[in-house]
Amino acid sequence: MEKFDLIVIGSGPGGYVAAIRAAQFGKKVAVIESAALGGICCNWGCIPTKALLKNAEVYDQVKNAKKFGITTDGISVDWQKNIKRSRDVVKKLSRGIEFLFKNSDITWIKAYGKLLDPNTVETTDAEGQINKVSADKIILATGARSKWFDGMKPDGVDILTSKDALVLDKQPESIVIIGAGAIGVEFAYYFNTFGTEVTLIEALPTILPIEDEEISKELERAFKRRKIKMRTDTMVDSVKKAESGVMVKLSNGEKIEAEKALIAVGVKANIETIGLENAGIVTENGWIKTNDFMQTNIENIYAIGDVIGPPWLAHVASAEGILAIDHLTGKSVTSIDYNQVPGCTYCHPEVASIGLTEKAAKESGIEIRIGRFPFRALGKASAINDSEGFVKMIYDAKSEKMVGCHIIGPGATDLIAQAGLSLQSEMTYKELLKTIYPHPTLSEAIFEAVADSQDEAIHI
Amino acid sequence: MEKFDLIVIGSGPGGYVAAIRAAQFGKKVAVIESAALGGICCNWGCIPTKALLKNAEVYDQVKNAKKFGITTDGISVDWQKNIKRSRDVVKKLSRGIEFLFKNSDITWIKAYGKLLDPNTVETTDAEGQINKVSADKIILATGARSKWFDGMKPDGVDILTSKDALVLDKQPESIVIIGAGAIGVEFAYYFNTFGTEVTLIEALPTILPIEDEEISKELERAFKRRKIKMRTDTMVDSVKKAESGVMVKLSNGEKIEAEKALIAVGVKANIETIGLENAGIVTENGWIKTNDFMQTNIENIYAIGDVIGPPWLAHVASAEGILAIDHLTGKSVTSIDYNQVPGCTYCHPEVASIGLTEKAAKESGIEIRIGRFPFRALGKASAINDSEGFVKMIYDAKSEKMVGCHIIGPGATDLIAQAGLSLQSEMTYKELLKTIYPHPTLSEAIFEAVADSQDEAIHI
Repeated sequence: MEKFDLIVIGSGPGGYVAAIRAAQFGKKVAVIESAALGGICCNWGCIPTKALLKNAEVYDQVKNAKKFGITTDGISVDWQKNIKRSRDVVKKLSRGIEFLFKNSDITWIKAYGKLLDPNTVETTDAEGQINKVSADKIILATGARSKWFDGMKPDGVDILTSKDALVLDKQPESIVIIGAGAIGVEFAYYFNTFGTEVTLIEALPTILPIEDEEISKELERAFKRRKIKMRTDTMVDSVKKAESGVMVKLSNGEKIEAEKALIAVGVKANIETIGLENAGIVTENGWIKTNDFMQTNIENIYAIGDVIGPPWLAHVASAEGILAIDHLTGKSVTSIDYNQVPGCTYCHPEVASIGLTEKAAKESGIEIRIGRFPFRALGKASAINDSEGFVKMIYDAKSEKMVGCHIIGPGATDLIAQAGLSLQSEMTYKELLKTIYPHPTLSEAIFEAVADSQDEAIHI
Repeated sequence: MEKFDLIVIGSGPGGYVAAIRAAQFGKKVAVIESAALGGICCNWGCIPTKALLKNAEVYDQVKNAKKFGITTDGISVDWQKNIKRSRDVVKKLSRGIEFLFKNSDITWIKAYGKLLDPNTVETTDAEGQINKVSADKIILATGARSKWFDGMKPDGVDILTSKDALVLDKQPESIVIIGAGAIGVEFAYYFNTFGTEVTLIEALPTILPIEDEEISKELERAFKRRKIKMRTDTMVDSVKKAESGVMVKLSNGEKIEAEKALIAVGVKANIETIGLENAGIVTENGWIKTNDFMQTNIENIYAIGDVIGPPWLAHVASAEGILAIDHLTGKSVTSIDYNQVPGCTYCHPEVASIGLTEKAAKESGIEIRIGRFPFRALGKASAINDSEGFVKMIYDAKSEKMVGCHIIGPGATDLIAQAGLSLQSEMTYKELLKTIYPHPTLSEAIFEAVADSQDEAIHI
């Protein structure tokens, strides 16, 4: 039985990052992964959606090229090519991880992994070959998968999970999307842009319900202009195959027919068949329980990423992976501040945020100052003809430090990193306003919103 | 004679920002400007070029739409529309400043201003009407204009300044651009993208000669792939009207013919006719001399922006305007750190930088650590099919703080703001690496380059 310093089960952005980090510290590492390297993020999540969303953006740009002085005749969508580019990007990046593994002498065991005891993992490959490997330390990074509620079980053909929706062989005429979190909203933008009739259903009062309410409302207005139908505060009773397409039954008795339905109501942990019971690992509400340093109740076994529960974000998994390695190799570590985790939704206009919403800040009893800056007042946004949305800044009136930043508009998902740095460095608004921002850029909207929080904005 | 608290001569990003800032503090302010509000930046610089560059980007996107699964038939450029959109954006933003002035009770004196003494300005309007106004404080923000060397005087028809190039009534077949600073390089990208044959001539050894050499070399490779002809280390003797088009004579005797020539060899201050002598204001090498708080040698007269010399950047002018107002209203102020001024070039791939180049850092005797991260290793860059370029980070090995950041690639001009924040807050690399960056975004390239400077990058 081969023995490693570290075995990582799962190769998503938690697992593969942890493995590379451990190898950098000279550890002998194996990663157990039966599918392509990269996990959901690389293969069926973040990356393929971003490729499809870019295709949609290009289509939108081509349709509107006339505004920019560019004339085109016939415009059509090659749906197969749309999907293929997304899959090609995925393959390239997955192979990139394979290359990094080879470069770092990480052993990829292409098999399914199951704990036998706290130091031993049984591997079963595609041919059913069973083997055993052992390690001093083990990281569980098995991720999560789509969940659904009773009465809406996906069939992969008409009732889809996000994975199915990534590889539809033709564009649907119409689709009902159940759930308006980041995944539901991104698919709504994607299908709508290509001309599919989209109905987006959300049980909570706004789409993107975890975002600041003002942001969600602004996105609703933008989606309304794009003719996306939205039903918030709306519960779904069932989603069934109909004679042609699907029938969605709402709890108020109303029925919505469409060609396809996409179930995007959340995820559940992949914990059932990985032998948790053999090692005595404790779970809570269906997620593996860890301490602040990613250790499970079994000292030498760590867990990171989606399998330990929300927020289900690739960058959180990676940060947890690095923390776990730093901890298990005895480096000095500090725990992750989950208040400083950015969230992004790559629809158009883009949405990104970090820290507290206005509501949460008020509920926490902080005295706050709020600043806003609309992209329509920004030179660069006008120059590129992309002026929907605004930046909303929330500052602590006493400490003069940022407590939250909420952006909807062009470049939001890249601009939000600035707020992350500001939170991390605990800059006051005065320090931020001493920073010289390049003109004309989208990033100036951050500067102006901070200035506005102190009634010092120049351009509003 | 009407008396103001403050008179600002010139309404560019220095002057108009200073005026609004002063009005926020309750000052009675007049701005003397004979042309449209907004100065060169808004009317003939930053903004109209960004609109034209966006048009070029859209053209490029449309031509390459097939890669994204979007098919088009005929593609053509409506050159009039191309120019018109740029002028429309300019007009909208200039009117926006007018609106801000009205809102702030700032008096716009639409005239040419000339100092008569340290407190009095003579104004001459378009009808030749002469008037006088006075103020306790005066800010000179008259900017700069294109310069040229002997033997290359622009005629506005075939031998152009950047101002002429913004409103060419038809696309030239070929153009020779003299000077490969930001302006020359942006126009090279713009004309080349639309299919004009471009020759870019630079006296120094690289294009964008003030950038880090590695960045300039990478841009040269990118421009070469785009078939832009570049002649570095090359002096121009003369640019003359030829029988058809222009004839550019190099100092080595070689001749280059083209339809048009663009002179982009720098700027000179607008100081000749503003009455500096009447107030006894001292200049140095053709620029108005100021102290660290923007005061000229005459205590109540300040000068800001291009008229005081390099770096000729809109955001520097604005920062100087704010500093001048804070100083003259008695707020506590600190001088501008000109080492923390970002510079941007909006060609494709974009270039942006802040702080020291590798060469300058080495010359300063600092022990440095350099990190690089190529966009081709970044998931988001692959997803959007835009992977040229890299981020180069320079850290002080002892203090562990950033001393320079140099970016060439997608989103560079927005990403650079992060480096500005990092410099301003004096974050160490360890603090920056504790920041959770959203995945998948372009901003992760910053994180990875910082990690690479410490040999901790995950994705290379």
